[in-house]
Amino acid sequence: MLVYGRNVALELLKKPKKIQKAILQQGFDDKKVFSSLENYKIPYIFKSKNEMDRLADGVHQGIILYVRDYHYYSLTDVMRPNPHFIVMLDHIEDPHNFGAIIRTCEAAGVDAIIIPKNRQVSVNGTVMKTSVGTLDQVKIVQVSNLSSTIDFLKEQDFWVVGTALEDSVDYRSIDYSGKIALIIGNEGAGISKLVRKKCDFIAKIPMYGTTNSLNASVASGIMIYEVIRNRK
Amino acid sequence: MLVYGRNVALELLKKPKKIQKAILQQGFDDKKVFSSLENYKIPYIFKSKNEMDRLADGVHQGIILYVRDYHYYSLTDVMRPNPHFIVMLDHIEDPHNFGAIIRTCEAAGVDAIIIPKNRQVSVNGTVMKTSVGTLDQVKIVQVSNLSSTIDFLKEQDFWVVGTALEDSVDYRSIDYSGKIALIIGNEGAGISKLVRKKCDFIAKIPMYGTTNSLNASVASGIMIYEVIRNRK
Repeated sequence: MLVYGRNVALELLKKPKKIQKAILQQGFDDKKVFSSLENYKIPYIFKSKNEMDRLADGVHQGIILYVRDYHYYSLTDVMRPNPHFIVMLDHIEDPHNFGAIIRTCEAAGVDAIIIPKNRQVSVNGTVMKTSVGTLDQVKIVQVSNLSSTIDFLKEQDFWVVGTALEDSVDYRSIDYSGKIALIIGNEGAGISKLVRKKCDFIAKIPMYGTTNSLNASVASGIMIYEVIRNRK
Repeated sequence: MLVYGRNVALELLKKPKKIQKAILQQGFDDKKVFSSLENYKIPYIFKSKNEMDRLADGVHQGIILYVRDYHYYSLTDVMRPNPHFIVMLDHIEDPHNFGAIIRTCEAAGVDAIIIPKNRQVSVNGTVMKTSVGTLDQVKIVQVSNLSSTIDFLKEQDFWVVGTALEDSVDYRSIDYSGKIALIIGNEGAGISKLVRKKCDFIAKIPMYGTTNSLNASVASGIMIYEVIRNRK
């Protein structure tokens, strides 16, 4: 995958094995970057600003790195050390949200993140950038079917908690002391019907204004810290 | 200010008085948008995709609106109905964070948001977009000096709560029952020294991974919902 921007490049250059090659803008002269590239023998070429703008769909600050794709874990991988808290994303589309959720999960000590293969942003450069170095510390699993994965988690004694406004209970009233699988819904549509049916609890974060939803990564943060509230 | 993208345009067209004019991409044919523009007699012109790309620094989907600038409130404005919960941003730089924080403040019923005039993202198009329609429901105050504003708030019986890792107490252990001014620090540097000195409490959100910070809007969400936890 492509990752760009000076700060994330410097961060990645600490783990040089992951970097396949670098593209630098003609005239690029950041000594710190150059000495890392030379030290780790990472091949690099120069391109014009126009060519680089075409490659990156964001601010690249003169540096684009080709980084090895994220290696997803399998469901059996993450089941081995007896996980207690899993976060499942029901089709998150915005890479900034996904990155911020990864960062929160890492901070809160979530055991694994499960995402669906389709209609969900995968671990790309923007996700890596917004997760600010936490990606390697979190186990992410890609599954074909969320619904059957929930069935599997229930067999492993997980309580499944979804979030929605209708037919829900206050998020502070749920007992999170057991094994918890927390499901975060899509930015626009929320959690899907089929997934919702399988939830043991539907939690609601109370709102007092005119809006009826929070940003997906903000809502995830509030829910995740509620789950670990009385745990650690 | 410039606001772009189809969804935010449709949202804004519900409040047509704010829109000064529209720029549409040649070939743009969204009937919903056209009928709104015609109904409200909003002037519009067509431009090429290249020209529009140059105007917008993000995905415009063929529509750019010129919207009246946000009208900031004064500190005395927001003091009149006896506020109990104020959020102060100590130099937030990312417009996505600012937008998400506005959305959370609106949902949680925060009385006002105070931002500094300098080195802080102001209410621009991206902020408006990411606050998804909540901007009009929140009072935002711009001040020249955060430090003297804190002194003023203290005189009005506010308790000032900052967030940081060092010399701090668990965010769950603070008594938020009085009037609270919650300070959210800059994405990289956290809260500034001078502001920190004036805080009555420094709160810490516990973290169990390798990262020592959360995304600013996620941390704000957790703190804001902690403040209102036992209130409403």
